[in-house]
Amino acid sequence: MQKKGYHIAVLGATGAVGQQMLKTLEIKDFPISKLTLLSSARSAGKKVQFKGIEHTVEEVNPESFAGVDIALFSAGGSVSKEYAEHAKRHGAIVVDNTSAFRMDKNVPLVVPEVNEQDLFNHQGIIANPNCSTIQMVVALEPIRQTYGLSKVIVSTYQAVSGSGTAAVEELYEQTKAIIHNEEYTPEILPVKGDKKHYQIAFNAIPQIDLFMENGYTFEEMKMINETKKIMNLPNLHVAATCVRLPVPTGHSESIYFEVDKADITPQNIKDLLADAPGVELQDDPLNQVYPMPANCVDKSEVFIGRIRKDLDEVRGFHMWVVSDNLLKGAAWNSVQIAESLIKLGIVK
Amino acid sequence: MQKKGYHIAVLGATGAVGQQMLKTLEIKDFPISKLTLLSSARSAGKKVQFKGIEHTVEEVNPESFAGVDIALFSAGGSVSKEYAEHAKRHGAIVVDNTSAFRMDKNVPLVVPEVNEQDLFNHQGIIANPNCSTIQMVVALEPIRQTYGLSKVIVSTYQAVSGSGTAAVEELYEQTKAIIHNEEYTPEILPVKGDKKHYQIAFNAIPQIDLFMENGYTFEEMKMINETKKIMNLPNLHVAATCVRLPVPTGHSESIYFEVDKADITPQNIKDLLADAPGVELQDDPLNQVYPMPANCVDKSEVFIGRIRKDLDEVRGFHMWVVSDNLLKGAAWNSVQIAESLIKLGIVK
Repeated sequence: MQKKGYHIAVLGATGAVGQQMLKTLEIKDFPISKLTLLSSARSAGKKVQFKGIEHTVEEVNPESFAGVDIALFSAGGSVSKEYAEHAKRHGAIVVDNTSAFRMDKNVPLVVPEVNEQDLFNHQGIIANPNCSTIQMVVALEPIRQTYGLSKVIVSTYQAVSGSGTAAVEELYEQTKAIIHNEEYTPEILPVKGDKKHYQIAFNAIPQIDLFMENGYTFEEMKMINETKKIMNLPNLHVAATCVRLPVPTGHSESIYFEVDKADITPQNIKDLLADAPGVELQDDPLNQVYPMPANCVDKSEVFIGRIRKDLDEVRGFHMWVVSDNLLKGAAWNSVQIAESLIKLGIVK
Repeated sequence: MQKKGYHIAVLGATGAVGQQMLKTLEIKDFPISKLTLLSSARSAGKKVQFKGIEHTVEEVNPESFAGVDIALFSAGGSVSKEYAEHAKRHGAIVVDNTSAFRMDKNVPLVVPEVNEQDLFNHQGIIANPNCSTIQMVVALEPIRQTYGLSKVIVSTYQAVSGSGTAAVEELYEQTKAIIHNEEYTPEILPVKGDKKHYQIAFNAIPQIDLFMENGYTFEEMKMINETKKIMNLPNLHVAATCVRLPVPTGHSESIYFEVDKADITPQNIKDLLADAPGVELQDDPLNQVYPMPANCVDKSEVFIGRIRKDLDEVRGFHMWVVSDNLLKGAAWNSVQIAESLIKLGIVK
């Protein structure tokens, strides 16, 4: 029997994703008996509204998780690494939205529409995948289940809110400066911690996260490795090119994929995706119906359109996948994991 | 022996590309003995500067091309169809920047770095390819020559100036409206002649040109068919997804390609492209060096970076290709064709 409510902690409550987590917990009417809002020292003391009640954000400490059932972490990888064990020690299950534990083989990496059952293997920590990965696997999993999947080549069109609220602010301030012919100095994008910063307004930057020695960015390698782990397809061919756009919120993806079966039509894929969990099909090109980032904001679905057959490869298809990177890409997927933990009886 | 100068006509002299053609003729110090500036009735009478001298744009008529050596057309497909024969009748060679004749088997479709020799087959009309095709084939041709080429999958990130100056204006006006929280009504993009118009500011629209019954846009089919024709590879596998971005000028492309030879390294490709005609390599990811649209404006090169090997396909590579869509994508390629016509002695 389910409890009437659960003690939920949100670590990183004042950040872009933390704020969306609170909004999502509110909208989805998540059963909460107690809410503990935590942050680093820098943001502690800030006031945050939840269901009309003002909460004060507390500075996280090793004892913050006493009595917590589920702790939603979204305060950066180093904070997760420091506090996950403390949360576990107090019996909380951590749902971590950073990349700290995603590729740890003892940590399930979960998108409920794809691999909800992996939650049973948790050892106290569950990882929430990278935003650009989540929306892609939601689109690909129904296809894999019915027609098999051997290859994925994705080019992304990613929004700046993936880099946090300060990056969104930078986009708007830079845009204003350019329009008014004023000076500006890029300070955050493409990557706060990297050496150089570039104009994002009216531009496209082919760098998200730092570069690795192999010429790929960490973001690209996240998409590649996380997709294989979530879908449990270690031999799937996956390639990714990740690009930052002057879009505040909403990631788009141009995805080429190959199924195992021949003779599959675009209509077969459309029929499948029209009924797929978490998906809204928007695919009527002759009436100019297709997903766009400006239309996906504040919605929890993954929007899919432009499904068409490759003209050369009998097993090849193309599609265009858009979702709110702060919701399904982060906050909503985390809250969904929390819902699944309750539904499956893992959190009692 | 070359003449000291040629009689050049520019049809569509007041448009976005026409203006860039004049600028390019000026910068490249093209040998001009006489310049005739033409337009439709709507723009006739406008004043245009060329090398400090004011020219009045005349309304085109069937006799406008008397004595003209080379006529650069960029006033829309229907205007090209109406006047190309008149220009031919007067002995002019037409370099047409519209899609009117591109797939006509009697019309060479030329990117001088790739297939300059095809100019010898002209019958009075030479077609300038689509902007997004040109920059891609400039990047692919040196690779094909040395290592072979079997497959191309491209996702584009295209600027609004590809839709004309009014579309650029719409981007800026919409951006201002959104920033100042004012109302606006999209009226041009994604396609002026289509039924619905969408916000382009802070958005990404997966439609360029109209849709065909097969689910592809005309823009995508242009990239596919023109690439095969220019490179003279009818059996090349080419797939394209074309997306419009809130970028004023500068098309970017995420290109996956497969060569015929195995054991080719990214360094092999880089060495090749570093010396390739019309190319500037910008590929040093660890120092955050890669091409971006904001840096390519007013430059005639095709900029290439992010060259890396696919992690699964031994013959597969990825790269990121950026160029000024009004210059190499249109005006510069047209003027370059005119230069080649003189250099090869086709126009005497």
